[in-house]
Amino acid sequence: MTNQTTSAAAVQLADIQAAAKRIEGMAVRTPLLRSAVLDDLTGGTVLLKPENLQRTGSFKFRGAFNTLSQIPEADRPKGVVACSSGNHAQGVAESARLLGMPATIVMPEDAPVIKLERTRAMGARVVTYKRGVEDRDQIALGIREETDARFVHPYNDPAVVAGQGTIGLEIAEQAKAMGLVPDVAVACTGGGGLSSGVALALSGMVPGIEFRTSEPEGFDDFSRSLVSGRIESNESASGSVCDAILTGEPGTLAFSILKEIAGAGLVVSDREALDAVAFAFRELKLVLEPGGAVALAAILSGKLDIRGRIAAVVLTGGNVDPQMLQRALA
Amino acid sequence: MTNQTTSAAAVQLADIQAAAKRIEGMAVRTPLLRSAVLDDLTGGTVLLKPENLQRTGSFKFRGAFNTLSQIPEADRPKGVVACSSGNHAQGVAESARLLGMPATIVMPEDAPVIKLERTRAMGARVVTYKRGVEDRDQIALGIREETDARFVHPYNDPAVVAGQGTIGLEIAEQAKAMGLVPDVAVACTGGGGLSSGVALALSGMVPGIEFRTSEPEGFDDFSRSLVSGRIESNESASGSVCDAILTGEPGTLAFSILKEIAGAGLVVSDREALDAVAFAFRELKLVLEPGGAVALAAILSGKLDIRGRIAAVVLTGGNVDPQMLQRALA
Repeated sequence: MTNQTTSAAAVQLADIQAAAKRIEGMAVRTPLLRSAVLDDLTGGTVLLKPENLQRTGSFKFRGAFNTLSQIPEADRPKGVVACSSGNHAQGVAESARLLGMPATIVMPEDAPVIKLERTRAMGARVVTYKRGVEDRDQIALGIREETDARFVHPYNDPAVVAGQGTIGLEIAEQAKAMGLVPDVAVACTGGGGLSSGVALALSGMVPGIEFRTSEPEGFDDFSRSLVSGRIESNESASGSVCDAILTGEPGTLAFSILKEIAGAGLVVSDREALDAVAFAFRELKLVLEPGGAVALAAILSGKLDIRGRIAAVVLTGGNVDPQMLQRALA
Repeated sequence: MTNQTTSAAAVQLADIQAAAKRIEGMAVRTPLLRSAVLDDLTGGTVLLKPENLQRTGSFKFRGAFNTLSQIPEADRPKGVVACSSGNHAQGVAESARLLGMPATIVMPEDAPVIKLERTRAMGARVVTYKRGVEDRDQIALGIREETDARFVHPYNDPAVVAGQGTIGLEIAEQAKAMGLVPDVAVACTGGGGLSSGVALALSGMVPGIEFRTSEPEGFDDFSRSLVSGRIESNESASGSVCDAILTGEPGTLAFSILKEIAGAGLVVSDREALDAVAFAFRELKLVLEPGGAVALAAILSGKLDIRGRIAAVVLTGGNVDPQMLQRALA
């Protein structure tokens, strides 16, 4: 069900650079932001990469567009199919719309309303399933067999990883333009597509940079896998406010990359993620969803100590329901 | 009570360029953002200048820091005094904190809680007054006489106008770097400090550009003054959700500049301003306050038709209480 590979060589810096060319003019080149309040609080120099400002409200558009734009013209009418709790759904749906392709997205019925609505608004057909009961991969497989559509995995695909990696290229270029060299980068981590792509790009562009994953408590599969050296699974499939990054286990491709270049994984509580959402609202004036705020939570909570260091922090998504924002602000 | 002048020659492009050097490294060089959703909706090319991402959450820091940093060392211990509904308050308080100066801010007692709290958090002494009953200028005058502090007017001061004008310089430079030349720019307008500075900078940098003010209904003093050719006042001092831009009448300095270079003023309803706040939350993932969203409201409502045109839109502030955001989203 995946276009997977376990070879780290499956994605190279050159693939990420090629992806950057493909998405140029379609994806937003998000800025690299400074915040005096954040620098004061952490004692470091923070460079925020706000992918909540990306087309569709999350970074997922980058990987999806890089993948779909490589589908040959002749195969495009067959369409694409994807499974997603919402952000990958929107990235695929919007890419398909732009390329004139039909899209079917398999989404959990308990996905945030905003994500279900927005995916439909982009013209995709949405098929829902019960999380933890039905097998979304089986549903998607059925659709693929019926339509011969291309399956677009949310992270276990070299083209998706290369697309997400363009964030790392931009961080390196934008920091350089500011006269700064990041010492460390941290990103919100689910299946690891973004983290592995960003880590690859940054390790290629910024020699010696440290890369850290950040995950929600109870969904610390990467953190544990990086310790044991093999893929470890989570016990639950739901139960955190960080809906965007609740994967069962690390993607094999992402893990093959991150086990070579990532430092120890960081883990934050739901309350720390919600506090980061509230901080972003009050101080940064940015709308973040909990799953898009766990990297920020890692530095705000002090779990990643950046005193005297330059830290790039990827804010991955902003598709939050107003009710969840209220909960964060409470 | 103002450091006023009625000569447009009081502020030149060179003053704005000098201000840009003074605020460099202290103010955020806010990005120029694109939004595919906004382009699709308006039929134009929209360049958003998000000054909600500025230090203190609004553009006011630019003018305040440009002004305070020019106070001679010997006079700094006397401090500064300012009147403000909240954003200028924070800009002055933060500038004073950075320069090691005492600051007293006269604020209406009904100012948003977030603005009162944040001003105090920046170390300023806050003196409150009843809007429409007490005369804030008299209160500030008393403080100035008592302390010999420098009075920092929110808009009727050439140094303040030059500071806010740096936004226009950045728009021109950033648009050029994107290969785009704006046809029109629109900004939220209260006393006109930002609008006059931005209009001056842009008219100097982008020949032929049109500049438009945007105001809330009932506080359309600039719009009426631009028609009549003389300064017209508003009937009320409060009664709009756009608390940040409820001024009694145009600043004389700003009006002397804008009457020469601004097009017809735009006016939006409170509902249109709130809809723009909600749009920014849902689609742009940016936190805006109603008064910081009236320029966006002008293009979303179609009151400024930008079909086929390139429009720079200044988002001026994001210091919104959660209750007001809820009202916007309802």
